[in-house]
Amino acid sequence: MMTQENLQILLSRYQSGFSLEQPFYTSAEILSAEWDAIWKQHWIYAGNVAQLKKAGDYFLYKINQDEIIIIKGNNDDVHAHFNTCTHRGSAICLEQKGHAAKLICPYHQWVFDKDGRLLNARMMPDDFCKEEYNLRSVAVEVVEGLIFISLAKEPPSFSSIRESLAPFIKTYHIKEAKVACQKNYTLRANWKLVAENFRECYHCGGAHPEYCSAVIGANLREDTSELTNEKNKVWSEKGLATELIEVTPGTTTYAIRYPLRPGIESYSTDGKKVSIPMGHHQDHDAGVVGLVNYPNFWVDAVSDYMWTMRITPIDASTTDVEFCWLVDGKAEEGKDYDLKHLTDFWEITGEQDGRLCENNFKGIESSAYRPGPYAAVEDQVVNFVDWCVKQLQSK
Amino acid sequence: MMTQENLQILLSRYQSGFSLEQPFYTSAEILSAEWDAIWKQHWIYAGNVAQLKKAGDYFLYKINQDEIIIIKGNNDDVHAHFNTCTHRGSAICLEQKGHAAKLICPYHQWVFDKDGRLLNARMMPDDFCKEEYNLRSVAVEVVEGLIFISLAKEPPSFSSIRESLAPFIKTYHIKEAKVACQKNYTLRANWKLVAENFRECYHCGGAHPEYCSAVIGANLREDTSELTNEKNKVWSEKGLATELIEVTPGTTTYAIRYPLRPGIESYSTDGKKVSIPMGHHQDHDAGVVGLVNYPNFWVDAVSDYMWTMRITPIDASTTDVEFCWLVDGKAEEGKDYDLKHLTDFWEITGEQDGRLCENNFKGIESSAYRPGPYAAVEDQVVNFVDWCVKQLQSK
Amino acid sequence: MMTQENLQILLSRYQSGFSLEQPFYTSAEILSAEWDAIWKQHWIYAGNVAQLKKAGDYFLYKINQDEIIIIKGNNDDVHAHFNTCTHRGSAICLEQKGHAAKLICPYHQWVFDKDGRLLNARMMPDDFCKEEYNLRSVAVEVVEGLIFISLAKEPPSFSSIRESLAPFIKTYHIKEAKVACQKNYTLRANWKLVAENFRECYHCGGAHPEYCSAVIGANLREDTSELTNEKNKVWSEKGLATELIEVTPGTTTYAIRYPLRPGIESYSTDGKKVSIPMGHHQDHDAGVVGLVNYPNFWVDAVSDYMWTMRITPIDASTTDVEFCWLVDGKAEEGKDYDLKHLTDFWEITGEQDGRLCENNFKGIESSAYRPGPYAAVEDQVVNFVDWCVKQLQSK
Repeated sequence: MMTQENLQILLSRYQSGFSLEQPFYTSAEILSAEWDAIWKQHWIYAGNVAQLKKAGDYFLYKINQDEIIIIKGNNDDVHAHFNTCTHRGSAICLEQKGHAAKLICPYHQWVFDKDGRLLNARMMPDDFCKEEYNLRSVAVEVVEGLIFISLAKEPPSFSSIRESLAPFIKTYHIKEAKVACQKNYTLRANWKLVAENFRECYHCGGAHPEYCSAVIGANLREDTSELTNEKNKVWSEKGLATELIEVTPGTTTYAIRYPLRPGIESYSTDGKKVSIPMGHHQDHDAGVVGLVNYPNFWVDAVSDYMWTMRITPIDASTTDVEFCWLVDGKAEEGKDYDLKHLTDFWEITGEQDGRLCENNFKGIESSAYRPGPYAAVEDQVVNFVDWCVKQLQSK
Repeated sequence: MMTQENLQILLSRYQSGFSLEQPFYTSAEILSAEWDAIWKQHWIYAGNVAQLKKAGDYFLYKINQDEIIIIKGNNDDVHAHFNTCTHRGSAICLEQKGHAAKLICPYHQWVFDKDGRLLNARMMPDDFCKEEYNLRSVAVEVVEGLIFISLAKEPPSFSSIRESLAPFIKTYHIKEAKVACQKNYTLRANWKLVAENFRECYHCGGAHPEYCSAVIGANLREDTSELTNEKNKVWSEKGLATELIEVTPGTTTYAIRYPLRPGIESYSTDGKKVSIPMGHHQDHDAGVVGLVNYPNFWVDAVSDYMWTMRITPIDASTTDVEFCWLVDGKAEEGKDYDLKHLTDFWEITGEQDGRLCENNFKGIESSAYRPGPYAAVEDQVVNFVDWCVKQLQSK
Repeated sequence: MMTQENLQILLSRYQSGFSLEQPFYTSAEILSAEWDAIWKQHWIYAGNVAQLKKAGDYFLYKINQDEIIIIKGNNDDVHAHFNTCTHRGSAICLEQKGHAAKLICPYHQWVFDKDGRLLNARMMPDDFCKEEYNLRSVAVEVVEGLIFISLAKEPPSFSSIRESLAPFIKTYHIKEAKVACQKNYTLRANWKLVAENFRECYHCGGAHPEYCSAVIGANLREDTSELTNEKNKVWSEKGLATELIEVTPGTTTYAIRYPLRPGIESYSTDGKKVSIPMGHHQDHDAGVVGLVNYPNFWVDAVSDYMWTMRITPIDASTTDVEFCWLVDGKAEEGKDYDLKHLTDFWEITGEQDGRLCENNFKGIESSAYRPGPYAAVEDQVVNFVDWCVKQLQSK
């Protein structure tokens, strides 16, 4: 078994620039340490407000042994509660998403308001103190429609995340946006392997023909500096954020805008636009906004849609990956966009990545696996792995 | 991991009137402690003699890692043996139920009598002592056709159970009864949550419209004292047991007779009788006999049928629930009863309860779950939980 | 939990002639000790060269947490490598069997030769030392076409196995043989129970009517000494190996040739030959060659086909069993053999044995299971169990 002492030895052996030792990818005890050091310390992406159109709309987010109810309140605010009744513990919301004017426990009908206050507990004695039995809540922050929660007792400051993400996100008007599609994938791979996969394009040339067709330089063989400089000027003139933000000590956010291949209008398998420009956008020339927030949030947004990815460990060897496609709130399916045309690009690319992650995990399970050297072009992977190790060390 | 010391701390923290802390519902170690303190100490309901019509009829009861063969002997007696051959350990009976004139191991054909004696072990040497290799047996008690077993080295006295159950059961003539239907359900819930669910009607009004239609007062809004007094006189005149028996220190049995809603003839979705009166009964006016024997036995019997429930832990988070419907031995399907009419009531109500138990368990798995206060009308749940805690404390 | 100390106590309590105590069949910790003491110490049968016709043909062998690539090299040699890339650990071969001119990692396209040498790691720095990142390899020995691997750091001598098996195998010309059929079965039984089952015929009379029809004496009721003597003379004249080889201290191989029932030509359900004589054989009168190599290899070969069995633990309660049917390289399906006629005999017998093993395991899981006495005719089982215990003791 993995003891605290063993974890310290493993951490002390970590060599930046090399992949982690096997137990970091397979041990339940290390995942448990990660829950404490990473998932219960940092802001976690849960979803977006386009999923919650009116007061009482909710969805559930399963994370570790907890199910969190994310619900829209009466004043356009967002609340998050543990899905467990304060009477005998029953789950309250039973559907993955839905609408509830009040949160009523299905077991004995205790009634809670959307903000978690216990409104009614029938047949309880007169001296029963309702205030002691409100739902247990979770901290929430919303930045330009992106909902983050914190399971920390004292949530860290959200300002750095807000400041980094807001300029890139605000032009998409998520609050008015439409969820065109949402899909969950269960991968047999440690969650960090999924994160690592999405922090390098060393594999893109061999694995992602569709992606490389759309993104110039993804194959790591094309020089994109001239095009990038030219586009940056155009985007700046339009007021679009272009400043590269990197994850540095104390921050968790990466943000970049980069160009599509000339002639390509969107992330699509045919390179053509897939919908009307989204939110504030007026054309199909905004390039790609790439966002990451450690540990679990990814965005690739083009002019006409935003694709978000949320990754969540199920256990050391299993990861839930949620894709969400957002389009402009006025876009109509069949008229302004075709669902397959919209989703093909990331379904195909995501499927390719899913297989790579599962193969990666399968090989790491071998007794012969040893940490291997990352290539220079995998520097963002090193950034991520370093970050994980540092969180574990600081606990 | 749950150590003996941790269990003692948890037990010392228990506050009667509040639900148990999470590990009591989720920990494999506490279930293991319960096997020792509860399941291997007390009489366990296994089944009934209507399942064993003639000598050699048997059924298997899977409990913990053991399969018990319950078999009818030559003299109308019932034997119980561990289903493991004394040669190399093979399971002997391979079907869930069946008939065996002799118990013959399918591996090397060692032959045992129904009472467990080794009759023949072919090709063993002359000095082989057969008496040392009889099947390992389990204590059995039968009360009015209900079969209880004990896995204890020294089984406790059965007299209190016998005395409590016999007056309520004897009028049903189980020995001559017919098993109309038997079903097993696997619930994702700790076994105690299933037991708790079946010890209170705080949830009935909201969850069980069919049940509340049949049982007056089940909604906790109707005063039934007048009707009960009146019916008690009628039942007493007919010689039917009416004395309320409660679980008190040192006993495990609860028994009650209570009235159906006026005009209701049976536990059925239409309120009409479902079969001919059972056993000694001459009419459809015997009310409901409700029986419980801790830890695993429930009965609801009306004039024309008896429904039994046996609950058995599979692991900390999974429970097997067996329903059995018994009707009078002379009742013929299609003529005297319709199977769907007979079983609908408890299939529907049981399904509702199964979902409630699973939701309850799901919410208890949350890290935010804390013991909550039972309502005054959940006093029988408190009785059960107190009993469980006491058994664990006394080990 | 099973500690090293507990294992020593269990080992010290072992009584030769009695089956093992329950934990030897059910405990993950004892399986772990067996991986160290048995599976990583001894030569393990992996497959045969008829599965690898040309250079680059490979198959995977999953054993413990490892997948081993068994691949034919350029010079008719056989290589074995752990299926994990030295870059970031990805599995390299993704199919159960296939062909690879080079071993190319699907993640980032590192290229390895069939012998495991790293040929190309694109975009790695100039000072990157390729020699340090060859595939991690496994020792291989081939005897007359049978492929054995060793996971030991210092593999033991293979000479005893080679000397024992070669005389019996060489007449079958495995290198030119044809794999007519290959099947894997997953049994819910500890691997040793499968091995025990295949080391005694105490169960054959009751369980295997087809087998007993073909093999004289399998029912343990027929005296075969006269026939065996007569046949031994015939076989010796033909140059066929007939010397009985038993597993003795320091060796792992058992080999025997025994006669089929007079008039029976092959292991088939109708007793008739199933194919043309295999390899060197000219007729259907070679009897049966029975081979065992501890811990995981069994052969029953008749004049016209060879049946091999490879058993591999998946976990303490689950075992993979692979059957392979080899026929002469010139035999054509539909003309020289009918696939069902060829495979029926061992599919039926194997299915019977599979059920026996699973029943055996199921009964051993009982808390009432105790080591039982082996019959005198189960002496080879005792030999195997003694051997296992000795390996565990010597670690």
